[in-house]
Amino acid sequence: MDGGNPMGLAKLKSNPGDRTLVYESAGVNSANAHEGLSRLTAHITRTWHERPPELDLGHFANVIEIGGQGVAFCTDGVGSKTLIAQMLQKYDTIGIDCVAMNVNDLICVGATPVSMVDYIAIEKADPDVLEQISVGLTQGALEAGISISGGEIAQLPGIIEGYRPGSGFDLVGAAIGHVDLSRIITGKDVQPKDVIIGVRSNGIHSNGLTLARDVLFNKLGLKSGHRPEELDISIGEELLKPTHIYVREALEIMRSVSGLKALVHITSEGLFNLARLPAEVKYVIDALPPIPAIFKMIQEAGHVDNDEMFSVYNMGVGFCFVVQESSADDAIAVITSHGKEASRIGYLETSSERVVSIPARNLEVAKSRKIPNKPQSRG
Amino acid sequence: MDGGNPMGLAKLKSNPGDRTLVYESAGVNSANAHEGLSRLTAHITRTWHERPPELDLGHFANVIEIGGQGVAFCTDGVGSKTLIAQMLQKYDTIGIDCVAMNVNDLICVGATPVSMVDYIAIEKADPDVLEQISVGLTQGALEAGISISGGEIAQLPGIIEGYRPGSGFDLVGAAIGHVDLSRIITGKDVQPKDVIIGVRSNGIHSNGLTLARDVLFNKLGLKSGHRPEELDISIGEELLKPTHIYVREALEIMRSVSGLKALVHITSEGLFNLARLPAEVKYVIDALPPIPAIFKMIQEAGHVDNDEMFSVYNMGVGFCFVVQESSADDAIAVITSHGKEASRIGYLETSSERVVSIPARNLEVAKSRKIPNKPQSRG
Repeated sequence: MDGGNPMGLAKLKSNPGDRTLVYESAGVNSANAHEGLSRLTAHITRTWHERPPELDLGHFANVIEIGGQGVAFCTDGVGSKTLIAQMLQKYDTIGIDCVAMNVNDLICVGATPVSMVDYIAIEKADPDVLEQISVGLTQGALEAGISISGGEIAQLPGIIEGYRPGSGFDLVGAAIGHVDLSRIITGKDVQPKDVIIGVRSNGIHSNGLTLARDVLFNKLGLKSGHRPEELDISIGEELLKPTHIYVREALEIMRSVSGLKALVHITSEGLFNLARLPAEVKYVIDALPPIPAIFKMIQEAGHVDNDEMFSVYNMGVGFCFVVQESSADDAIAVITSHGKEASRIGYLETSSERVVSIPARNLEVAKSRKIPNKPQSRG
Repeated sequence: MDGGNPMGLAKLKSNPGDRTLVYESAGVNSANAHEGLSRLTAHITRTWHERPPELDLGHFANVIEIGGQGVAFCTDGVGSKTLIAQMLQKYDTIGIDCVAMNVNDLICVGATPVSMVDYIAIEKADPDVLEQISVGLTQGALEAGISISGGEIAQLPGIIEGYRPGSGFDLVGAAIGHVDLSRIITGKDVQPKDVIIGVRSNGIHSNGLTLARDVLFNKLGLKSGHRPEELDISIGEELLKPTHIYVREALEIMRSVSGLKALVHITSEGLFNLARLPAEVKYVIDALPPIPAIFKMIQEAGHVDNDEMFSVYNMGVGFCFVVQESSADDAIAVITSHGKEASRIGYLETSSERVVSIPARNLEVAKSRKIPNKPQSRG
């Protein structure tokens, strides 16, 4: 969901703590959010004494030991993408985003996604809308190979509001997966000379929608049905394109490609998510794929600088695998066989601190400056 | 959370389908909600073909097989109780409710709760509020013996609103537990002559808050700080009292009391939840504990009939155990040793359909008339 997004919706697990420029003007105080999250995590980790989870906070999912098995566990929502669905009155794909945001997190710790529960908070129950949401949830679940084993629908007038009166909803999932306790992937083994493989995104995915709405609809005054030259579909359709699900290729790579070091879901923070991996190395992004048109539109119309764009958006790369150099071609072949585009986008080099560098854009961001500490992230 | 609550907040998993009396006037259409839920479940069960969960929809939690282990899995929120917390500006107990609503569901399938993730959707991040919410989450988790292994905070202005501008939030959890696959409790073994043990609630818990607010604050015009004769605390404090967590006594009963047949979390639907158990029997409630004062106040001030009160509220009984007659005293002794009050409130008798009967109140409700079919409930 939204997050690094500076316009109003902070996904705090990866929201850059020092970027308050636009947040403030949109009424969202990221400093307050981080202070709150920091205090919250200090409390909740007090519950870890008796039966601690396998991982610290800050990974994309945690892992819980149950009867000798590793159960990966995470939760995420689709944030303000629900407002785009309401604008278009098209509700049959937002469920795919909800599944994607959860299962793409689960695979990052090496887990096979198994099941999800959904939570729909809705201002006013509409059978057609609920059915359409479930169409997307089902499609996403089938694509990810998981069951939806339960859920909750809460009618919450007075708590949920929407794009038009009565249309509001929030869509959240929690998912579990299976990982052998001895095979949890944390990314601790990445090292210089490893290769970063970037898999193409399907556009904006579920991050940065608030900034996109602000620039395209408020600043430019465009209608969601407007079809700009640069896109072959309307702006609304472009923004609503569902988040790619990277499960099947990830599972095959885990099974068949030796030398897999890390998996990184590119959500808020964009490629700076790489610096969430625990190794002190430099990630050099030297071969970005072409930037999709929607991002260029937002950047130009909104006069958004590179730093901000790359902090908010995936910029065309929705998922990364870090692999040893000799395995890169095999990994790309697997991804391609699953119908997605992938390429080497960079490599790792020696560094005394965690840094993500995009030389062509003159960007270099150290974890200490930008990426929240692990205790602020919560999987 | 709210649900059977007829004033505006439908927890659809147990919302009576034929009660539209007050819902409609509050702008919540329960017929629409049920129609939507029914269509939604038809879709999502299509995800069950490859790896079906262990239980049908309609139980308090589902169970997923992972590596030969049973992982119980559920999600629930606290509904409009967040509005009471906002009225009182007291946020340090609502997290207990969030934990309780989830772990009390998990134990109903015989599971030992293990871990939870929380999701806080908030209109505007306030560090103090987030910290206080986490105080309750932590307290609840420690009481339930679980870890909080992750979570998500989403700032969602434009989607979340509150009691006063900027104060809105929604609080939801998802929880996992461990149950031996051969020892899942479904309640299918209950039979005539079994005994229903009722454990006292801590007041209104997390159901029926919308009706309570409407009657006490809107109709009667009371202030949340008002201390009526009948209560020894203010109305606001009474409504905010945290939901009891029944985990420790339930686990001891599972371990040590033979003849345990079923566990039933009394949420929306109140005692009619008993009819969610899959056996065709009649549940006769012939020894209700005294009705707590808060329910009497709401009933009298709101001119709410018995049928509606018992459909919306726990009426003093927060959890039920169904046990064979010879085990009843042992079960009560265990509950008492954990500091809660419990008593025999009824028994089971032969019936050709599932019926819950409260003769002293002249209530008799058959599942076919009132309790949603299993496909409408989602655990």
